Amino acid sequence: MTAAGPARVIEVDLGERRYPVRIGTGNLARAGAEIARRTGASQAVVLSVPGVARRHAGTLERSLRRAGLRARRIVVPDGDRTKRLEVVERLYGDLLALGADRGTALVALGGGMVGDLAGFTAATFLRGIPFVQVPTTVLAMVDASVGGKVGVNLPQGKNLVGAFHQPRLVWIDVATLRTLPRRERAAGFAEVVKAAALGDASLFARLERDAEALMELDPRRLVPVLGRAIAIKAEIVSRDEREAGARMLLNLGHTLAHAIEALSGYRGILHGEAVAIGMAFSARRSEALGLAPEGTAERVVALLRRFALPTELPRFPREAYLAALRVDKKRRDGYIHYVVLRRIGRAETVPLTAARILPPGRAGVRGRVPRGSSR
Amino acid sequence: MTAAGPARVIEVDLGERRYPVRIGTGNLARAGAEIARRTGASQAVVLSVPGVARRHAGTLERSLRRAGLRARRIVVPDGDRTKRLEVVERLYGDLLALGADRGTALVALGGGMVGDLAGFTAATFLRGIPFVQVPTTVLAMVDASVGGKVGVNLPQGKNLVGAFHQPRLVWIDVATLRTLPRRERAAGFAEVVKAAALGDASLFARLERDAEALMELDPRRLVPVLGRAIAIKAEIVSRDEREAGARMLLNLGHTLAHAIEALSGYRGILHGEAVAIGMAFSARRSEALGLAPEGTAERVVALLRRFALPTELPRFPREAYLAALRVDKKRRDGYIHYVVLRRIGRAETVPLTAARILPPGRAGVRGRVPRGSSR
Repeated sequence: MTAAGPARVIEVDLGERRYPVRIGTGNLARAGAEIARRTGASQAVVLSVPGVARRHAGTLERSLRRAGLRARRIVVPDGDRTKRLEVVERLYGDLLALGADRGTALVALGGGMVGDLAGFTAATFLRGIPFVQVPTTVLAMVDASVGGKVGVNLPQGKNLVGAFHQPRLVWIDVATLRTLPRRERAAGFAEVVKAAALGDASLFARLERDAEALMELDPRRLVPVLGRAIAIKAEIVSRDEREAGARMLLNLGHTLAHAIEALSGYRGILHGEAVAIGMAFSARRSEALGLAPEGTAERVVALLRRFALPTELPRFPREAYLAALRVDKKRRDGYIHYVVLRRIGRAETVPLTAARILPPGRAGVRGRVPRGSSR
Repeated sequence: MTAAGPARVIEVDLGERRYPVRIGTGNLARAGAEIARRTGASQAVVLSVPGVARRHAGTLERSLRRAGLRARRIVVPDGDRTKRLEVVERLYGDLLALGADRGTALVALGGGMVGDLAGFTAATFLRGIPFVQVPTTVLAMVDASVGGKVGVNLPQGKNLVGAFHQPRLVWIDVATLRTLPRRERAAGFAEVVKAAALGDASLFARLERDAEALMELDPRRLVPVLGRAIAIKAEIVSRDEREAGARMLLNLGHTLAHAIEALSGYRGILHGEAVAIGMAFSARRSEALGLAPEGTAERVVALLRRFALPTELPRFPREAYLAALRVDKKRRDGYIHYVVLRRIGRAETVPLTAARILPPGRAGVRGRVPRGSSR
């Protein structure tokens, strides 16, 4: 991968908190100067997990040092279980021990977990220090790096604690994806499919054309596709930073995904996989409710399957699903703003009770939706 | 105290997050309707401490119910030790158990500790739920209820973790002050003196005239004085929500105060008392550095003493003070933005190292500043 490969810059326009997302290939070694410029920091603390740190932290830190910053590193265990308050508390202590102050930038190098954890820590340490995202998974590149949502899990549910804290910069090197296991790669594409399904029919068609090449990380196809998926999210977030309206569309597939993850104890299923299932479920419900034309769910399901993503609800009792849905953050006065598809490329929210999202009967709780019977 | 007593409304102008501070006497029983209107909530959870809850929570909750809200109560132990992450984590669990969602308002009924704890919990629970302040101490009325700074302590220092989360409404009933111990009452006036010293010479003169009547809570004098002190803070915060510039002036007296509190293990000294000491210290340093005219410190010290406030540094070793100063949140690249007085009614910040704030020698570390010798 050469430094002169395809590249994109997407501006996330949040007024004063405007920041750029830069995507390239083999550009990790050039991140330091831009991090220095965007944060004004004199010290950078890189937060990462062991595998990613071993492969990429050295490159990033050398680049930071060349840019005149002191570079320090904190490594936390991999896995979503690390995303909890106890770990955040330990990070506060680590930061204090490193002499971190408001002139210290916290740089998340890794996947969505690292970004969420670093972001929440940066949002709350000293009431907020500069924060930079260097995502190294497809999921984090497309989803976690834009929007400013950061947070940790509680035993009762995922992401129940958090904040909105915008990064000063998101720096993406798609070459870091090469060592990402295929399963995680695929899970990331669930969010790319989501962006297309809710906001851009032509991106959806491009995914239908290039799914296999994208899974192989062909940079000429990957950089523009990731760029477009990020731009869709950035446009929505720019219009609605705090999730009052349009931003809710980004929850397509997420209502069920959070329930599935909670019921699985966050084990055995990747976030993107849960989102794929939730998205397939939503597409089917959209048809069943007469909101989307027939065939919509079929296209969504078929595309997800080409990325080797699951599309059927795991078998938990309906009551367990309902209980999990009822702790949904977006719930308000008992109603969940559930995201449905109107067609490929267009989504909207409908206030539904948990019971209406998941009606009694076979649909959705027995592991598959029988074609033609529940619509 | 009658419902028709003196009253004031101060608008804190933060654009979209604009909110009013309403001050009156005997108005607690009328808070509910305004809380309902400002939050749009269907449920209110009142967070308080035992003594305050016993005296005032019933009145507030009845008022909330008359306004159509479900009212629930959470009582936490009194004292600054409650302001820690472990308690926040327990509150998240309590809120989930009460079925709290984004249609639930968290109402802080009590002093600054309750406001900080409730505010940080509201800022981070589900990434933010509506928050209302009903302060019942002079300190919380003047200081904690305006500015949106919320947070908790770490073992390493006070308020090292936090967020900016603006309340939807601040509702002040000065009649709740009657049961406040004199010492706490006095401590609250330290923040009133601070507001005057940094921003309004005529308020300072009014305090010099009415100190004793204010300590007796004469509402005709108290409501306008608190209103003016709040307005000074509100003006500064409106100009600078995130502490980039002008807002730093509000830290007058706080750099040393935080160090004193940390060195005291947060015991035996009230926040306002520590601020009084820090303010007296700053006034003396301002003169010693040739920044304020002679006599400035004398007026500040004399006024603080009329409120029975301490004005001399406790005897801790200088090295201990320096270490404590070095964890100051406002520190950046080793410099602390230290707030000095230019005269009564005008303050500014000067970047100083900890060692420059607290020079070697007798001044400040032996319990008193020898007049005329260290200037």
